[in-house]
Amino acid sequence: MKRILLIILTMATGLCLNAQEIANIGKKINVISPEINGNQVTFRLEAPDAQSVQVNGTMNEEYTIINIYGGEARACRPADMVKNDKGIWEYTCTVSPDWYNYCFIVDGVPTLDPANPLMQRDGHDRLNAFLVKGEYSENYSEANERGNLHFVWYDSPSLNSNRRMVIYTPYGYEENTDQRYPVLYLFHGGMRDEEQWSDLGLVRQILDNRIEKGEAVPMIVVMPNIDPNYQAVDFLMLPGYEYEYKDKLSFGQGFLESLKEDIIPYVESHYRVIPDKAHRAVSGFSMGGGTTINAALTYPELFDYMMPMASGMGKSQENIDRLLRFKEAGYKLIWIGCGDDDTAFDGAKSMDELLTELDMPHTFYVTPGGHAWYNCRHYLNTYAPLLFRD
Amino acid sequence: MKRILLIILTMATGLCLNAQEIANIGKKINVISPEINGNQVTFRLEAPDAQSVQVNGTMNEEYTIINIYGGEARACRPADMVKNDKGIWEYTCTVSPDWYNYCFIVDGVPTLDPANPLMQRDGHDRLNAFLVKGEYSENYSEANERGNLHFVWYDSPSLNSNRRMVIYTPYGYEENTDQRYPVLYLFHGGMRDEEQWSDLGLVRQILDNRIEKGEAVPMIVVMPNIDPNYQAVDFLMLPGYEYEYKDKLSFGQGFLESLKEDIIPYVESHYRVIPDKAHRAVSGFSMGGGTTINAALTYPELFDYMMPMASGMGKSQENIDRLLRFKEAGYKLIWIGCGDDDTAFDGAKSMDELLTELDMPHTFYVTPGGHAWYNCRHYLNTYAPLLFRD
Repeated sequence: MKRILLIILTMATGLCLNAQEIANIGKKINVISPEINGNQVTFRLEAPDAQSVQVNGTMNEEYTIINIYGGEARACRPADMVKNDKGIWEYTCTVSPDWYNYCFIVDGVPTLDPANPLMQRDGHDRLNAFLVKGEYSENYSEANERGNLHFVWYDSPSLNSNRRMVIYTPYGYEENTDQRYPVLYLFHGGMRDEEQWSDLGLVRQILDNRIEKGEAVPMIVVMPNIDPNYQAVDFLMLPGYEYEYKDKLSFGQGFLESLKEDIIPYVESHYRVIPDKAHRAVSGFSMGGGTTINAALTYPELFDYMMPMASGMGKSQENIDRLLRFKEAGYKLIWIGCGDDDTAFDGAKSMDELLTELDMPHTFYVTPGGHAWYNCRHYLNTYAPLLFRD
Repeated sequence: MKRILLIILTMATGLCLNAQEIANIGKKINVISPEINGNQVTFRLEAPDAQSVQVNGTMNEEYTIINIYGGEARACRPADMVKNDKGIWEYTCTVSPDWYNYCFIVDGVPTLDPANPLMQRDGHDRLNAFLVKGEYSENYSEANERGNLHFVWYDSPSLNSNRRMVIYTPYGYEENTDQRYPVLYLFHGGMRDEEQWSDLGLVRQILDNRIEKGEAVPMIVVMPNIDPNYQAVDFLMLPGYEYEYKDKLSFGQGFLESLKEDIIPYVESHYRVIPDKAHRAVSGFSMGGGTTINAALTYPELFDYMMPMASGMGKSQENIDRLLRFKEAGYKLIWIGCGDDDTAFDGAKSMDELLTELDMPHTFYVTPGGHAWYNCRHYLNTYAPLLFRD
């Protein structure tokens, strides 16, 4: 049967190879980049006419800069590449097992690696990615049993808009129609959007692996856009928006009501979830970590699990009162992840100390490094097995 | 209530502005690009250290090249940009209303426009995009009522693999649980993948607009990966694949059986569809157009609608016999779209002539231009209102 179909197929003409060529215009990619041998990574770019080529990425040294908003941010220091006599620029370094993001800088302009189709978006920046395999990163590649991602629009009366979220359903969800699932609500950082966790954050890969190994309970993950100023990722050209590039400086105030009034009801009426406190968790990174804390403390009746990442809280009486209300309502897990060199470390440490003073069991999980996605992926991978254990 | 939540939110500290900076490292984007005024488009790139900057895209002149596989392909001719005394390169042109893709070429290296976050992927190439508004392109921007996209894994026993497809559900599908929907099966071109139509092809935007205006019947669109050599887009690093860049030369032979045995049954058991011939359509571009013809003629009992794009068939006796079987089974629409300068035009014209000779009603819809996505979007937008009319 297969052979017959194959013969039939070859009889149809017009199977042209290429649509329009725009980027490489018929040129072949002559280099391998990145080339990974164990812990050694070599980047290559064919650019005989360039005066200067650098590679920048999360494998490079980190340092602190003052960003365009006047605040401190962490940056990676570009490394110079060296040109050989064939016009190919090259740079080799040694890294530990992890998932990395990078780009080239050609005569001052950030550029994707044309030899590496693997790309992710960080806000408005486009970055290539690569994986160095090892125990630390073993849950970052594709599992055998994979869940699905749904890009969903929902009505938000409390924000008076129709908004977008990404929903992960675990492997088997579509078939196991008798089963109901717990839900993790997972929030992006400032100036980012609803696509960030499923792309840069590897949420599907991490949960697929943990669930396939039996190390995490199958769960649904809901990743909304938490910025009330945007219905969705800001370049969709939604009605009423005129597309215009702006450095996006926008925060998530006003999101909490829509979480309770719009998002949770949507999820609980459209997906087979277990709609109680013991089966809801909330987590997020940076601004999403702040929103995590605020969601849990504003609605202690809703969440048994809170896992803020790269975020924290000060020691005000108001915060003490809020934490005590959360304690009184009962909870299963408070898990704070933060880098020891994170700009949010003081806030995270202050929250850790508050919880200790209030005799509230919790985990303060400190790792090396800064306010960065390599830490967030690792935190999700670390706390996922702790969720929804009865 | 909103005011109180806002006050509570500001009490959480650690809301840091930025994660790691890699691409622009704290630099501000000082230009607007592309700037669109009516039909005039200006591209800008700040690159004081570059020796040469060009812009290439679908607004430029088309010509024929011999591509890296030795076959003919259409290419766009790069346009030179001019540098001003501030180090900003600029180029202005006048274009008709349409959706365009482009990139910059900085000292010979294809580069995204850092001022334009709107990006799409064409195979391994990353291209920016912009919309010039007008009657022709009015269905290419976001509608008010938007459907959802689902990235779904399904088992394919006939190809012995677990494979990925993208499924569009129209606005209201999740709420109108009494309603069942017709299905369009829509196929990508050679060396492309299951994400191509929902990204570069604007399938959601086009159908959302047509459906919202009442000009098309609400329908589900199923976009599988039609290449049996790949379970999914080729850079996912699936188990058993070792990631390695290769210029992807791979065709879809052997897909047809899995369409009938695996994909259609999956769709009809997981979505609320009308599972009969009158409510199934098949369409595709280039290799996907050839697969469209082969699917319809191999399974005339399955499809009432076939819309091959940029594809066709020769005048063999075998093809005549196959077409006559399709005629005998009864059909509602044969709609062939092709550019008059498309490398597949002869095959499309030959199919048109065959159908005329066989007295089979059909539409041969010829537009200016080549084997390109601007034509495909236009064809989908044109035939969508014709589908599933009883």
